[in-house]
Amino acid sequence: MKLDKNIQILIVGLGLIGGSYAMGFKRNGYLVSAIDTNAESISFALKNDLIDKGATEPDANLIKQADLCIFALYPHVITNWICENQHKFKSGAVLSDVTGVKSPIVYDIQNMLRPDLEFIAAHPMAGKEVYGVQNSDNAIFRDANYIVVPTDRNTFNAIEMCKAIGETLGFARISSLPPRAHDEMIGFVSQLTHIIAMCLMTCSKSEHLVDYTGDSFRDLTRIARINENMWSELFLLNKDALLTEIKAFSDELDQIYTMLKEEDADGLKEKMRLSTARRALFDKQ
Amino acid sequence: MKLDKNIQILIVGLGLIGGSYAMGFKRNGYLVSAIDTNAESISFALKNDLIDKGATEPDANLIKQADLCIFALYPHVITNWICENQHKFKSGAVLSDVTGVKSPIVYDIQNMLRPDLEFIAAHPMAGKEVYGVQNSDNAIFRDANYIVVPTDRNTFNAIEMCKAIGETLGFARISSLPPRAHDEMIGFVSQLTHIIAMCLMTCSKSEHLVDYTGDSFRDLTRIARINENMWSELFLLNKDALLTEIKAFSDELDQIYTMLKEEDADGLKEKMRLSTARRALFDKQ
Repeated sequence: MKLDKNIQILIVGLGLIGGSYAMGFKRNGYLVSAIDTNAESISFALKNDLIDKGATEPDANLIKQADLCIFALYPHVITNWICENQHKFKSGAVLSDVTGVKSPIVYDIQNMLRPDLEFIAAHPMAGKEVYGVQNSDNAIFRDANYIVVPTDRNTFNAIEMCKAIGETLGFARISSLPPRAHDEMIGFVSQLTHIIAMCLMTCSKSEHLVDYTGDSFRDLTRIARINENMWSELFLLNKDALLTEIKAFSDELDQIYTMLKEEDADGLKEKMRLSTARRALFDKQ
Repeated sequence: MKLDKNIQILIVGLGLIGGSYAMGFKRNGYLVSAIDTNAESISFALKNDLIDKGATEPDANLIKQADLCIFALYPHVITNWICENQHKFKSGAVLSDVTGVKSPIVYDIQNMLRPDLEFIAAHPMAGKEVYGVQNSDNAIFRDANYIVVPTDRNTFNAIEMCKAIGETLGFARISSLPPRAHDEMIGFVSQLTHIIAMCLMTCSKSEHLVDYTGDSFRDLTRIARINENMWSELFLLNKDALLTEIKAFSDELDQIYTMLKEEDADGLKEKMRLSTARRALFDKQ
């Protein structure tokens, strides 16, 4: 299901993801406006036809026209923004987001939201190693996962509308998880992997090894270029789940260390067979 | 510099790498023969024009004709093979290999070798997630590193000839390192990365997460499909260097764990900036 063609979409926060959402919606014929405190971002987006209207302040007119508003801001500013500006929305407007961690924000927002508005969380698992609206590219959604993260308070209609965002933007797979399960999953498949990539780059004088790195090392460290403000915030917001995942990985690494130290070839081979079998499941997809 | 067009090349061991070497040499017009105990591998290679002649035993005639002999066998069998068959080589023949670990084999071979033969070690850092001569493909060398691993006993001519193997096969970068430094480097950029990929697959019930894995997780686990016999042997042969690298990585991971636990955002950001800066050096290349 695609989004209704007649709705007006407002994007708050025009970075890489906000800009790529805008691009995706505009290319599908939607009316898109945006609010960002950075005047250059707004003028870039207007000039490059990513949006129809823009403002550098929480403009009451723009907000009032929106049927759907998507927050592509740093997590710590979304709740405040909504708190200060929710009176400007028209009744029935649906609010969503693109944040990488859910439990620490979704309940706060839902608890303080006007009863005639609805907040439904979503996580587009897409990105780039570069930032800013200037790098917007809705092609990053093409092979990516889009996860709707509903709570018990969300309505069927808002959940369906949220899925339709993912369909409209062309995500490869759309699924649904409650906040806690989402955060656990993300701690493993995204945050732990970024930490591993970082550690590979920082644990050794790897600048001298550039000449020798093959595909394996490059694959494992592609995501080691990391926006420190955004990711440190996401890590800290998901602290408990992430600590659990680091611990589980670290215990596994200790096991391999011990097997190697004790020259336990059979143990190593068994781990390798398990690893191979599990990874083969991925390649079937 | 390419190899002299008139030399005859013998490959001992026709797996993925032996077969891909054969394919690369044949397509460059060299006369190539091969020895492998598996009759199917030999007949496949003959039928698909990867080799001109083949044998399933250490045929004295084939061995006598070789100017250059490359061993693409499991490490533990190379030394024995050479010990038992070195009397069949013609004087002046050059022997090389493709083994991923060097110190534990190169000195043993050089110590027992006939004085009129020369063994010069090399490591093509290329591979695939599939095995066997049937998957031979010399395109795997195109973006890869080729490392010549000379000892103090190697002659200038043999070192140049060994580099010429890499040039002839079309490797992207050819460099040179002594055995110990090679093994340290490989412990970090190749073996540690394979262990990390394995641990990511084995530490969690990741089969349930297939639907949610994005590019990051797939990149970090591409090499988690691993030939357990070859890799357990390579890990154990490079045990000391590899234990050191696992320890260094593990200590770094512990640091991140502690920073996260103590909510040390500045510490995390500093690690992220270092990681980003080092990884950026790679992307310049």
